[in-house]
Amino acid sequence: MKLAPRIVLLTSAAVLGASAASANELRDYALEFFKPLPSTVPAVADNPITKDKIDLGKALFFDPRLSASGVFSCYSCHNLTTGGDDNMETSVGHGWQKGPRNSPTVLNAVFNVAQFWDGRADDLKAQAKGPIQAGVEMANTPENVVATLSSMGQYVEWFETSFPDEAEPVTFDNMAKAIEAFEATLLTPAPFDSWLNGDDNALSEEELAGLELFMDKGCIACHAGVNIGGEDYYPFGLIEKPGSDILPEGDRGRFAVTDTVDDEYVFRAGPLRNIAMTAPYFHSGKVWDLKVAVQIMAESQLGEELSDEEAGKIVAFLGSLTGEVPTITTPVLPAETAMTPRPTAEVIVE
Amino acid sequence: MKLAPRIVLLTSAAVLGASAASANELRDYALEFFKPLPSTVPAVADNPITKDKIDLGKALFFDPRLSASGVFSCYSCHNLTTGGDDNMETSVGHGWQKGPRNSPTVLNAVFNVAQFWDGRADDLKAQAKGPIQAGVEMANTPENVVATLSSMGQYVEWFETSFPDEAEPVTFDNMAKAIEAFEATLLTPAPFDSWLNGDDNALSEEELAGLELFMDKGCIACHAGVNIGGEDYYPFGLIEKPGSDILPEGDRGRFAVTDTVDDEYVFRAGPLRNIAMTAPYFHSGKVWDLKVAVQIMAESQLGEELSDEEAGKIVAFLGSLTGEVPTITTPVLPAETAMTPRPTAEVIVE
Repeated sequence: MKLAPRIVLLTSAAVLGASAASANELRDYALEFFKPLPSTVPAVADNPITKDKIDLGKALFFDPRLSASGVFSCYSCHNLTTGGDDNMETSVGHGWQKGPRNSPTVLNAVFNVAQFWDGRADDLKAQAKGPIQAGVEMANTPENVVATLSSMGQYVEWFETSFPDEAEPVTFDNMAKAIEAFEATLLTPAPFDSWLNGDDNALSEEELAGLELFMDKGCIACHAGVNIGGEDYYPFGLIEKPGSDILPEGDRGRFAVTDTVDDEYVFRAGPLRNIAMTAPYFHSGKVWDLKVAVQIMAESQLGEELSDEEAGKIVAFLGSLTGEVPTITTPVLPAETAMTPRPTAEVIVE
Repeated sequence: MKLAPRIVLLTSAAVLGASAASANELRDYALEFFKPLPSTVPAVADNPITKDKIDLGKALFFDPRLSASGVFSCYSCHNLTTGGDDNMETSVGHGWQKGPRNSPTVLNAVFNVAQFWDGRADDLKAQAKGPIQAGVEMANTPENVVATLSSMGQYVEWFETSFPDEAEPVTFDNMAKAIEAFEATLLTPAPFDSWLNGDDNALSEEELAGLELFMDKGCIACHAGVNIGGEDYYPFGLIEKPGSDILPEGDRGRFAVTDTVDDEYVFRAGPLRNIAMTAPYFHSGKVWDLKVAVQIMAESQLGEELSDEEAGKIVAFLGSLTGEVPTITTPVLPAETAMTPRPTAEVIVE
């Protein structure tokens, strides 16, 4: 676990002053912690990204037939029209069951150190297999998914083109790899990136003041890097545990992954890109107001009571992380055949 | 109710012959029954279609916050990636309840004489209000929808631009009009249109043979016009009622709309564009195989037993009605605000 780095405070003159020198000083300082989004799709481990694979991944991402019921696709809880998540406390899935944690955004998720709130999936291809099989989400099985995809000639062709060296390309693993390839393209360059890249006018004075506060107060101890978070794990309630309405006792976070006492109530720091689009907040999804969420974080993680004005400035800065969603055209999916397993809304209780 | 027109049978030489004259003869004959899709968005009653209104309608169509739970949007059951429907017998809605009838495609629906299987909505703007309020579908109320849309400044602006002469443009009616405007753009020109428009090579010999059978056998009595159906109402089982597995006794069709005995088990003839993409078939959604559906129709409506070969040819023709879905980019929707009503998955039993 990382500790908060010692933070060199900038004078506010450096932020508010009009001189190019001070603007550059703030930028140089910010660049010690943050990185702008790259201009190209990042490479991912063990999965060369090709145009064919991205296209296949997009089809799979949108295909509700990856769920047992035919109701849910990846897109259902990672809705690309609403910030890459689903605007609910926790997602509603198969049989109208509620999932245990708030759905995180898929946008820029490729830059997170690992996936899920507890980091239990190393990467997006591992993540993709989870909800498809979870009984409370898509409630499907790898066998049924492969049978579904194999039943449609167009899908078989797409897998062949995407995995050209494989004798049996239609596999659950390759499905996950294709989804990862598509998701890796979901980058949303934001005003903050323009500013980091040298455009002084990309951020307003209030946003810059918020950025300075974000750094001065120590938020950057956990929320840094290209995703302004998502890089490491920290206890929720490092200084002071929030109430059990926000941090339910039953969900001990990363403890379930590592079985280590130190990891009780430890979660991956939330990546903050597009955070203004992805209420409600925290793994419990219990807080809808971003300013309140910022104040809770300051108190529980830093022992800081932020004034309304301070929290407002930080929220303004966070707004500059709302990026441009890439243009996504809805795919045209192949029709079922006689061989396609039929959807079932039945809820199997084990 | 229309009766089957007397059909002038063509010799099969007219179909299979290579001469331009016979091809034109078949086309002229077909044009007595069918109309190609227009090249422009059709006008609709009482709702001038503008670019702004289409864009707003697209946003609304994709927005799951039109449902009480936040789970369902228009797109959920009229999925534009899978033929404009949802590939289920009947849709799954709020509280995991199943709807009473198969979800019809939204593609080209603007050309249907009325909407829903029983025609209970005069047009798409009337239709759009139904599922949003249906307890088993989106389970919302007009008041809650208006509160939701009014809570987001971007939506208010979009409504103002789309309905520039109105003092209070954010209304449930205007929501429905905008959705209708977007849906009116969902036209899918198909090979059959190319052929009707004069391209002899657009249809294969088998498809042409199927077209001839489709006309000769009398399918065109109900399935004609621009949507090859969707123009009028007919009893399901005109000659011979199919089994109650396919025609459940409890659903008496248009009888519920008109309260007229003549309308018992009467339904709007299914529009057949993209029919190969929209299994399962019939209002009950009980038949997955298009060839079987064709044979059931021939028997129940025409008293004809089609050979496997004949049904196969008709299915080939129906395949030529699969059109090109317009390029649709996913909209970027505004984020909730403090004023936005929160989603609720609660099922209210009345």
